[in-house]
Amino acid sequence: MAPGKTVIAALRRHAAPHVPIWLMRQAGRYLPEYREVRTRVKTFLELCFTPELAVEVTLQPIRRFPLDAAIIFSDILVVPHALGQRVSFEEGQGPVLAPIRSGGEVRQLSLARLTETLAPVSTAIAAVRRELPPTVALFGFAGAPWTVASYMVEGGGGSDFALAKGWAYREPESFMALIDLLVDATSSYLLQQVEAGAEVLQIFDSWAGVLSSAALERWALQPTAEIVRRVKAKHPDVPVVVFPRGIGASYARYARECGCDGLSLDTTVAPSWAVGLQSHVALQGNLDPLALVAGGDAMQEEAAGILERLSSGPFVFNLGHGILPQTPPEHVAALCELVHGWKR
Amino acid sequence: MAPGKTVIAALRRHAAPHVPIWLMRQAGRYLPEYREVRTRVKTFLELCFTPELAVEVTLQPIRRFPLDAAIIFSDILVVPHALGQRVSFEEGQGPVLAPIRSGGEVRQLSLARLTETLAPVSTAIAAVRRELPPTVALFGFAGAPWTVASYMVEGGGGSDFALAKGWAYREPESFMALIDLLVDATSSYLLQQVEAGAEVLQIFDSWAGVLSSAALERWALQPTAEIVRRVKAKHPDVPVVVFPRGIGASYARYARECGCDGLSLDTTVAPSWAVGLQSHVALQGNLDPLALVAGGDAMQEEAAGILERLSSGPFVFNLGHGILPQTPPEHVAALCELVHGWKR
Repeated sequence: MAPGKTVIAALRRHAAPHVPIWLMRQAGRYLPEYREVRTRVKTFLELCFTPELAVEVTLQPIRRFPLDAAIIFSDILVVPHALGQRVSFEEGQGPVLAPIRSGGEVRQLSLARLTETLAPVSTAIAAVRRELPPTVALFGFAGAPWTVASYMVEGGGGSDFALAKGWAYREPESFMALIDLLVDATSSYLLQQVEAGAEVLQIFDSWAGVLSSAALERWALQPTAEIVRRVKAKHPDVPVVVFPRGIGASYARYARECGCDGLSLDTTVAPSWAVGLQSHVALQGNLDPLALVAGGDAMQEEAAGILERLSSGPFVFNLGHGILPQTPPEHVAALCELVHGWKR
Repeated sequence: MAPGKTVIAALRRHAAPHVPIWLMRQAGRYLPEYREVRTRVKTFLELCFTPELAVEVTLQPIRRFPLDAAIIFSDILVVPHALGQRVSFEEGQGPVLAPIRSGGEVRQLSLARLTETLAPVSTAIAAVRRELPPTVALFGFAGAPWTVASYMVEGGGGSDFALAKGWAYREPESFMALIDLLVDATSSYLLQQVEAGAEVLQIFDSWAGVLSSAALERWALQPTAEIVRRVKAKHPDVPVVVFPRGIGASYARYARECGCDGLSLDTTVAPSWAVGLQSHVALQGNLDPLALVAGGDAMQEEAAGILERLSSGPFVFNLGHGILPQTPPEHVAALCELVHGWKR
């Protein structure tokens, strides 16, 4: 890893000349140039699996803004797709999956074609690395097993998790077989991304916040910690960030037990509380995406409140959730300026 | 307040012979006798505003199960209705409100007919009190200003809060006028309920968990604390429980600053963490409603995990969110037996 990548420095708890910043879903619909590329393909998965287009949209925000990291353009549902589940993205209604609801259906999934199916992601990662400025780090990523499993079982997003949680409560052994398969697949996929050129990894557990404390331990924290162990066993120097969205005070448990270098904080986490976690892990976050949409004084005040409390420790500025499609791009430019100009 | 009401004893930090239990939305669609009454009226608001029917559905779960509290059957959106906003409940899609989106529209709302419009709730409360067994406490309730405001602005539920939060970020002064109006209305309405016979109050802030730390302070914690102050100024002995759902570690801030007697914990809060709050407030919660749907070992284990950690301090057993329509009533009976038989 070249010196001068501020995101990597922060995640390794080294000094950096300025507070680094990147934004979840920074390659996305708020950019007109993204929407233009999106019209060139019929399906969202085609965009993920066509390296020259994935490279293009990954680089678009880097060309516009002085962001300190890029994140490879892809989706967490490429893993179930590569395991053999039918996954599609319907216009305007999000992902639709042919649901998996029994141990028998889990056994029909297979790791055999995982690496081959996901090879276009590797190709895109390698190409992005060649194009990125030397100060910009490249993130690879995957979904955490619980979040991916919940999409696989529910058959899509936006649900109440009654099916996934119901299965986990009623038949924990067969649900664990699904989680174990996802631990294997996700570890393998993240290693594949590192070997292609990803310099940092993020594991998104977007739906960790619907689990009770005991369920969080079993279905989210332990499986994610196992993935981190497997990645670190082969690549101990690659920083890993985990984003267990919505888990509240259990962020402290993750800080102690997950083995990751960084934790990404959701919007609700109070920076004044989270500062105590920086003795264990670097933190990332957590501006409200709607404060970025609003811009102006509200954005400046919210961002300053975060920077005041967290920028003295290991810290990467980010949003608390993905950037929204209605975000004016000039607000992103103003935010980068504020963060980079912040005096610790 | 008669002795022997275990919920009131727990909220006052007094000893009680067993751990008390009630369930959010315990009068609801999971009961066939509720569904039967629901067919007798055309609209949900008609059910709320017809005292003999509201009394009937309030008492239904008390007849079936040895619950330690009843909660008056109503809805948090009776307040915007009583302020003059058009509110309806569409079958299968939740509440629909003619949205309020400017300071001018806030000024068209009025407190003038609030008490009169909400008089049927008082009538129902008084009637329920006459019917309840002497050991069963009666809760009155209202929504917290932020949650009610978000419905009023968005025009319904299930949104991304872009309009309510956008207004709050861009024009905090005029948004504060809406919050202030709701502080006045909610305080008045809760006092009206106490004067009719409510013995305990709960304030539901179901959408507190979408706010950033600074926004939570301004739009949720401070307005709720003001309501608690106004209620306590007139009725210092009436216990008040606050349910700021989804706020994570900020429950600690509420425990210190909200002035309430009890905090209701959402499903995600780890009992092992929350136990530290019992030096400030009584706790209520927080079984996953889907564990109650599952029943059996999963429910017993989840409930025991909560009881082990929280039942030594001031504690009322409850769910972490409302009971789900698909809940088998016999699981509620089994849960009451487990909780009442628990040896501290």
